[in-house]
Amino acid sequence: MYGFHGRILHVDLTTGELRVEIPEEAFYRKYMGGSALCLYYLLRDMPAGVDPFAAENVLAMAVGPMAGVPISGQSRLTVAAKSPLTGMVGDSQCGGYFPAELKFAGFDAVIIRGQARRPVYLWLHDGEAELRDASHLWDRVTGEVEDLIKEELGVKRLEVLQVGPAGENRVRFAAIMNMANRANGRTGMGAVMGSKRLKAIVATGSNRWKPKVAHPDRLKGMARWGAQHLDSSDAAGLALFGTAVVTVPQNKVGGLPTRNWQSGYFEGADQISGERMYEEILKKRDTCYGCVVRCKRVVEITDGRYQVHPRYGGPEYETLATFGAYCGVDDLEAIAYANQLCNMYGMDTISCGATIAWAMECFEVGLLTKEDTDGVELRFGNAEAMVQMVEKIAKREGFGHILAEGSARAAQLIGRGTEQFVVAVKGQEVPAHMPHLKRSLGLIYAVNPFGADHQSSEHDPAYVQYPERMATLDLKDPVAPKVLNGEKVTFAVRTQWLYSALDTVNVCQFVFGPAWQLYDALQLVEALNAITGWNVSLYELMEVGRRRLNLLRAFNAREGFGREADTLPKRFFKEALRGGKSDGIRLSEAELEQAKDVYYALNGWDVATGNPTRATLEGVGLAWVADRLGL
Amino acid sequence: MYGFHGRILHVDLTTGELRVEIPEEAFYRKYMGGSALCLYYLLRDMPAGVDPFAAENVLAMAVGPMAGVPISGQSRLTVAAKSPLTGMVGDSQCGGYFPAELKFAGFDAVIIRGQARRPVYLWLHDGEAELRDASHLWDRVTGEVEDLIKEELGVKRLEVLQVGPAGENRVRFAAIMNMANRANGRTGMGAVMGSKRLKAIVATGSNRWKPKVAHPDRLKGMARWGAQHLDSSDAAGLALFGTAVVTVPQNKVGGLPTRNWQSGYFEGADQISGERMYEEILKKRDTCYGCVVRCKRVVEITDGRYQVHPRYGGPEYETLATFGAYCGVDDLEAIAYANQLCNMYGMDTISCGATIAWAMECFEVGLLTKEDTDGVELRFGNAEAMVQMVEKIAKREGFGHILAEGSARAAQLIGRGTEQFVVAVKGQEVPAHMPHLKRSLGLIYAVNPFGADHQSSEHDPAYVQYPERMATLDLKDPVAPKVLNGEKVTFAVRTQWLYSALDTVNVCQFVFGPAWQLYDALQLVEALNAITGWNVSLYELMEVGRRRLNLLRAFNAREGFGREADTLPKRFFKEALRGGKSDGIRLSEAELEQAKDVYYALNGWDVATGNPTRATLEGVGLAWVADRLGL
Repeated sequence: MYGFHGRILHVDLTTGELRVEIPEEAFYRKYMGGSALCLYYLLRDMPAGVDPFAAENVLAMAVGPMAGVPISGQSRLTVAAKSPLTGMVGDSQCGGYFPAELKFAGFDAVIIRGQARRPVYLWLHDGEAELRDASHLWDRVTGEVEDLIKEELGVKRLEVLQVGPAGENRVRFAAIMNMANRANGRTGMGAVMGSKRLKAIVATGSNRWKPKVAHPDRLKGMARWGAQHLDSSDAAGLALFGTAVVTVPQNKVGGLPTRNWQSGYFEGADQISGERMYEEILKKRDTCYGCVVRCKRVVEITDGRYQVHPRYGGPEYETLATFGAYCGVDDLEAIAYANQLCNMYGMDTISCGATIAWAMECFEVGLLTKEDTDGVELRFGNAEAMVQMVEKIAKREGFGHILAEGSARAAQLIGRGTEQFVVAVKGQEVPAHMPHLKRSLGLIYAVNPFGADHQSSEHDPAYVQYPERMATLDLKDPVAPKVLNGEKVTFAVRTQWLYSALDTVNVCQFVFGPAWQLYDALQLVEALNAITGWNVSLYELMEVGRRRLNLLRAFNAREGFGREADTLPKRFFKEALRGGKSDGIRLSEAELEQAKDVYYALNGWDVATGNPTRATLEGVGLAWVADRLGL
Repeated sequence: MYGFHGRILHVDLTTGELRVEIPEEAFYRKYMGGSALCLYYLLRDMPAGVDPFAAENVLAMAVGPMAGVPISGQSRLTVAAKSPLTGMVGDSQCGGYFPAELKFAGFDAVIIRGQARRPVYLWLHDGEAELRDASHLWDRVTGEVEDLIKEELGVKRLEVLQVGPAGENRVRFAAIMNMANRANGRTGMGAVMGSKRLKAIVATGSNRWKPKVAHPDRLKGMARWGAQHLDSSDAAGLALFGTAVVTVPQNKVGGLPTRNWQSGYFEGADQISGERMYEEILKKRDTCYGCVVRCKRVVEITDGRYQVHPRYGGPEYETLATFGAYCGVDDLEAIAYANQLCNMYGMDTISCGATIAWAMECFEVGLLTKEDTDGVELRFGNAEAMVQMVEKIAKREGFGHILAEGSARAAQLIGRGTEQFVVAVKGQEVPAHMPHLKRSLGLIYAVNPFGADHQSSEHDPAYVQYPERMATLDLKDPVAPKVLNGEKVTFAVRTQWLYSALDTVNVCQFVFGPAWQLYDALQLVEALNAITGWNVSLYELMEVGRRRLNLLRAFNAREGFGREADTLPKRFFKEALRGGKSDGIRLSEAELEQAKDVYYALNGWDVATGNPTRATLEGVGLAWVADRLGL
């Protein structure tokens, strides 16, 4: 088989059993890799109603057919499990060098069940797998652990995927880290890994395990084309300033969530922009295995109270927004430091920053006091307080123990009306792209099975124009008016299918996605076929995307969640934004509900329940899932 | 613009006005050509509830972007109008040289309204259009008319699309003929053209009007590849024996409808096979403009009572089946002669043969007598009676006047229980592929908006295996059991969308379709893009197919037809087949109704009514159609 090894490692941490499954090629073509492949095991092997921290939770990790092959944007790993943050399906992607190295180590996926009695780590090398004691690594931050493992194993080139202390402490938005600066950030996958006492997965492999490519010349041609066209592509913007390139433009249109979403305009935006980061603290640009885009920031701060080491990378736009604008903080160094803390302790910067911002608003209006916050003056703009809280959360110290539950659960624990300020969907904090301006994204925030997510669909056709690229998906005429009409819902659905395919082929949306692309969707198909020797069409690929979305949705249906869970934070409907270009904008719940009707219909789901029907499941080759759901 | 001229001719026969519309390129990309383009005008310009023979009926004809370009399978024309046979949407494709020549004459489509006071023909040459008197051509058979027009215009190379006397006489299944041997056969489009007193459309053009190709080298490469791979492709089977190559295999499995569908086995099948035609009466093989497949038969019979002239071509499988097995006739020469009569008078051989077969069964059981049939002993196996009836129908003589209404209307006129033997869907007679063996085809027979049709989807995955080719459509695992389960319905739906796209790009399914292909679906996309310079994906193409299907369905919804019209002949549910390998097989109405639920759901239509919803119409870019339907 090309692209894949055809080897999936099953790990039972309770018994210590390691077993390699060798699926047929047809299995790979159907589930492809990444998210859909993970979800296959989640739905097959996990009973309904499991506690996310129980041994029965299945933690599935998979790369796709392109991982480890010399072309940009392929070194991506999906991790999926039942999410402790949402109680529904959890699903998260990362880049870096680990995904490619997992392939080089001889495995396409690792499916983890059970719970170890003592901390362990999984050591994968040249097709071999072993569990090793990790007691000495427990409670240590990511950078240290990397160093210790490298020393212990005496291997120079290896990659470490790990949880930090936050994962060990079951912070509900704990991340899984690799390179100490890349994260499977969202949905709390790190807490699941920590709960299993699996500290790390360490991978290395030799040339012998490099994945075989069916048509190396075709692939080489595409890689060469990509290198030559990078500068003239949209991806070039990312190359220079990283994702933070959008900070100032978002703010200009009133699209930078500020002070826990009270406003879309942050007066300090220039202070936390990609440009300023570039001028002041950027040390270098980093990249993922085989990628020419180099979108990753590496910052360094060698003096002052917020010293930052380059090994912990640098903040993305989302991180700048959540620790910055969300919290009213315009101190770039403090944000970079908070980012470092998240990468050391292993936490999602979005949920972490947003949860602190929520607490700040509660504090500002008097629903929280210093008695609650261990004496911290938790006000908007207080950079020091923000940084303190990040560390407290990771360690579950004092008020951090409450915030470590995420804003939605914390509000439930505290009560007193603090719920009104929660900005989360399905319990997951909302990322820094505003549905007030990006209406179709708002729909996807609401309906996405693993909570508000900005990387599950293209943003809004009225906001970003790219008719040429959309034409390949028959989305040539994006609709300008800021209403969620049928065409805009169609745009949302189609791009959700495409992103769903990207997360299953497991490639980077900044290389192959419709917005920042270096390669378009048809080139993705070309690359996939060059690698696998298959004859996949964009049509088949979109169906793979639909299949994955149905798997996610079926998981939630089995857990009892459907249409009612698909909504936006009440605040968006009740309060208008204040200040900036988006002043006065408020969303309509009725409009969202109507759009959901259309959304479910276009997906072939039951409009009343929002759940997949047997017909639709059979239609995407998932009759067995319909059986599981008792349909 | 490449591929197209960007010129659509509007003809008002009432006023004699000729007007050229020049749409934007985006219009062509959206509606593409052929069927969808025609349907756009039908829905836009025709009010609901029009009598098919009224001046208000719009007769639309269009070629696609590939017509007239040097590659196989592109010279195809769609004709659409409200059908006098079904009272719903009518839609029919033909091949030949006319479609390419229409392009060479400078037009992509001709949209005809109104009704001429005297017979006229439309003369299209090098971008010019004029209406000319056709009184002298009226009542003449197709061959004669061709000769007269060529003489009159003094042009050597021209192509004539025309109605014969059957169309003039409004035989409800009259065809539109070109080359006197190619037919837009089904749904009675010839009767509509005849009712408008438009005898013919004559086209010729010079090199100046040849369509421009965006990437001629890429196209040349594909044409060369096609010529080189013909012999090793499935299309080779068609090249040697024509479509009649299936006669014997169909009969072997019990799939040759015999004696008005009483049986699937015809003892005389060998006598009417493609092989026998090849040995006995084949003169040569013919082809369409630019096509290397050469699937068309040309037969000649120079003595005996059934003399056949080569200019009228030769029978297809369907014709051999309907005049042969349906009627219990095993006389190949009589069938070839009946075929010639249909081509001279301009009639659909399927509806004509099937209507006679229905009358024969009524006669056999005594529901019709010689008093009804002008003294003709209308029994199964009576070749002479069959031939007599063909001519009577064309001329609407005696009993032919009744049969010219088609079997469903004739049964209503006659009564006496003759309805029980009607084998038609939506009033259109069922073609010679049996849903008893091809279950997913049976579903498409039932739901197809213009009545039973065998060229609107792929037949049955259990019957014909082609997993490799289906993989491009994510239909890799056809399901063997002969039940209409969800996966089989999915197969039907997807291939219906693909065929719908083929009829809109307007290419031949024997060249680009999944069953007899020379080129696969991805090669079609490649060819389309090489010609147009677009960047269409298979995904976009499938969406074009869905768009066209929604247009057809919307037309019927507007006329008040929905789910209830989607059924199969009662006989299929009540009686089992007798004899041969399919002995004892009877279809289940409950199974069909269940499959329809799934079918509508997969199309995003209202399951209760079978009608498109606003969401789905907006989803395929047809919000304006939803407006028309008052949704």
